[in-house]
Amino acid sequence: MDRVRRKNPLIHCITNDVVTNFTANGLLAVGAAPVMTANHEEVAEMAQTADGLLLNTGTLTPYQHEAMRIAGRAANEHQTPVVLDPVAVGATSYRTRVVREIFDEVKVDAIRGNGGEIAALIGMQADMHGVEGKSDMLPETLAKEAANVLETVVCVTGEVDAVSDGERTFLIKNGHAWLSRVVGTGCLLGAIVSAYIVSKENNEDTVRTATDALAQYGLAAEDAFACSKTYGIGTFQQHFLDALGLLNDDHSYGKTNVQEV
Amino acid sequence: MDRVRRKNPLIHCITNDVVTNFTANGLLAVGAAPVMTANHEEVAEMAQTADGLLLNTGTLTPYQHEAMRIAGRAANEHQTPVVLDPVAVGATSYRTRVVREIFDEVKVDAIRGNGGEIAALIGMQADMHGVEGKSDMLPETLAKEAANVLETVVCVTGEVDAVSDGERTFLIKNGHAWLSRVVGTGCLLGAIVSAYIVSKENNEDTVRTATDALAQYGLAAEDAFACSKTYGIGTFQQHFLDALGLLNDDHSYGKTNVQEV
Amino acid sequence: MDRVRRKNPLIHCITNDVVTNFTANGLLAVGAAPVMTANHEEVAEMAQTADGLLLNTGTLTPYQHEAMRIAGRAANEHQTPVVLDPVAVGATSYRTRVVREIFDEVKVDAIRGNGGEIAALIGMQADMHGVEGKSDMLPETLAKEAANVLETVVCVTGEVDAVSDGERTFLIKNGHAWLSRVVGTGCLLGAIVSAYIVSKENNEDTVRTATDALAQYGLAAEDAFACSKTYGIGTFQQHFLDALGLLNDDHSYGKTNVQEV
Repeated sequence: MDRVRRKNPLIHCITNDVVTNFTANGLLAVGAAPVMTANHEEVAEMAQTADGLLLNTGTLTPYQHEAMRIAGRAANEHQTPVVLDPVAVGATSYRTRVVREIFDEVKVDAIRGNGGEIAALIGMQADMHGVEGKSDMLPETLAKEAANVLETVVCVTGEVDAVSDGERTFLIKNGHAWLSRVVGTGCLLGAIVSAYIVSKENNEDTVRTATDALAQYGLAAEDAFACSKTYGIGTFQQHFLDALGLLNDDHSYGKTNVQEV
Repeated sequence: MDRVRRKNPLIHCITNDVVTNFTANGLLAVGAAPVMTANHEEVAEMAQTADGLLLNTGTLTPYQHEAMRIAGRAANEHQTPVVLDPVAVGATSYRTRVVREIFDEVKVDAIRGNGGEIAALIGMQADMHGVEGKSDMLPETLAKEAANVLETVVCVTGEVDAVSDGERTFLIKNGHAWLSRVVGTGCLLGAIVSAYIVSKENNEDTVRTATDALAQYGLAAEDAFACSKTYGIGTFQQHFLDALGLLNDDHSYGKTNVQEV
Repeated sequence: MDRVRRKNPLIHCITNDVVTNFTANGLLAVGAAPVMTANHEEVAEMAQTADGLLLNTGTLTPYQHEAMRIAGRAANEHQTPVVLDPVAVGATSYRTRVVREIFDEVKVDAIRGNGGEIAALIGMQADMHGVEGKSDMLPETLAKEAANVLETVVCVTGEVDAVSDGERTFLIKNGHAWLSRVVGTGCLLGAIVSAYIVSKENNEDTVRTATDALAQYGLAAEDAFACSKTYGIGTFQQHFLDALGLLNDDHSYGKTNVQEV
């Protein structure tokens, strides 16, 4: 976490129009710098200038789809790490097809999705309800399986989160149920995973860094709930941004609940 | 209200880009599940998977206009209820024409608008100031007249709200003036009317269900004002989401101010 | 300020999709009426109906670019004041070229940007990090130089703000560092400068009115920080809207820190 604040990484987000503001504020809160553009004429230049690229398919248009392809290629050429958040893959046949196309074309360093999305991405049974989704598999089994199939780091978020690179798999039990009652908390997490990954030391594993991101994000939710539980989810949203802004490694020391499985 | 929470209806929103986040959070708060896409290749599939479709014309583009036509047709074919929020109809000649075209092509179960918008939609004198609008008619007269002309349920919102299906007309005196100082509170209400309508029992009238939605929404505004009046409209917005999240039929029993006229 | 509340000016915003909601709420808070559309078929009519036009290039698409050209021409023809917020000019070569094209085609009454953006706009050395930017020049020097080159009123915002029309230059030392930790506070300021300018008396100078806007905006940030400092930047954002809603000339009397240089 402290490394993100020190590096102040520029994260180029091509994301859905429901969460642009919340994502940008969340990135600012953890010390990253957001930039958002899908313009075909500048997206390649931006993706190579930026420290990280986030591709989130929540409200994919044909124009944005093409922007992701251009930006993804540019990021790959310049070794800019790419995080894919395959929002609502599995909810329509179009989206399943297009998200897989993006994944096939762009080398991705990490994926963040709920159980249903990750299951749909690897062609398994998924239960999608719009952008919400579940899988019958245990998150750690699903994360490991998906990491092996997709050959990248996979973060499965839900009641309990799991992160795997196919070899090592971690379970994270931080977080709070109210996260699922604020729109964009999953999407913001994808952006923050990107901020963590691009700020890590060379000798650190992506799987471990992504796990740290999820655990500290969950801690911020716990902190926010403690301040807002007598009010409600509007107040929770505000204090969640407060908590992200106050996150640091000292504060989270000893409070994260992570186990390797 | 409690029925919305039990059903957790999926509301497909094609709405304006100023209020996407607020609308999604408000739908989550009342127990509905929002999904937002205007992509022509998936919009028909989404509209038929969803429990309800909301068409809001606040920032209509040609692409979004076509998406509304495709989604509206698909919803009609699959008996998915459609709510139309004709934002700023009457503010420009283009918008007046296009919104009427949408209304002519898509069978609509309910319409939500301010006095100026509803008046403009039926070709009467309207006083528009951007997205804000007034009519010289009493809201109950306007709602009844518009319901008869448009042959659907019409919700006119303003200082006092009115809902009519042409036969029965209700006046709702819940709410608070600060609602008009937070952007998107009208748009969110359109989405919540959709969530209520698709969660009603078969033997209930749409006009009565829409009236309940407006009364309980107004109550949430009263609750939010009580918590925020010493602070201001930023705090009001946050506590309004809190209050929507806490709404239930027990809480609102005896507090709604509805009369049939 | 009180004039804005009396006039309730309609500000037509063509702005980036990260800040639409925050901009609209901020305009409502100071007593202006926001309207947002980039639809080519109505944008000219809207720009001439409105009291002011804001062009913000934060997430420029080709479609939006063309909308700005149409709206800008219509505004110029009808003497509707135009404010340009050249977000992230200098961050990519495309954006630098296009923003200059907009500036060349549309007569602009005022420009609002950070030091890096204003420097890039006049072809000087700029240090851009996504949408954040700095210049090595003192803000008052940069504002005056840019006002002379661009022949308009220039507002340079940063730790200390400066406003100049080339002849008179003002330094404003109100504000708080947390403004830079909430996304869209610069963009909203551009919109509020527009609201102030279109509400001024004929005998007032634009440079003086824009200076007032910046000083009172900064005061609101100071007020918001006083209420939120023990919580964090999420709470600050909420109280900043509260503070904008409570701004009035009596309240700010004697508290603004402005000097002519």
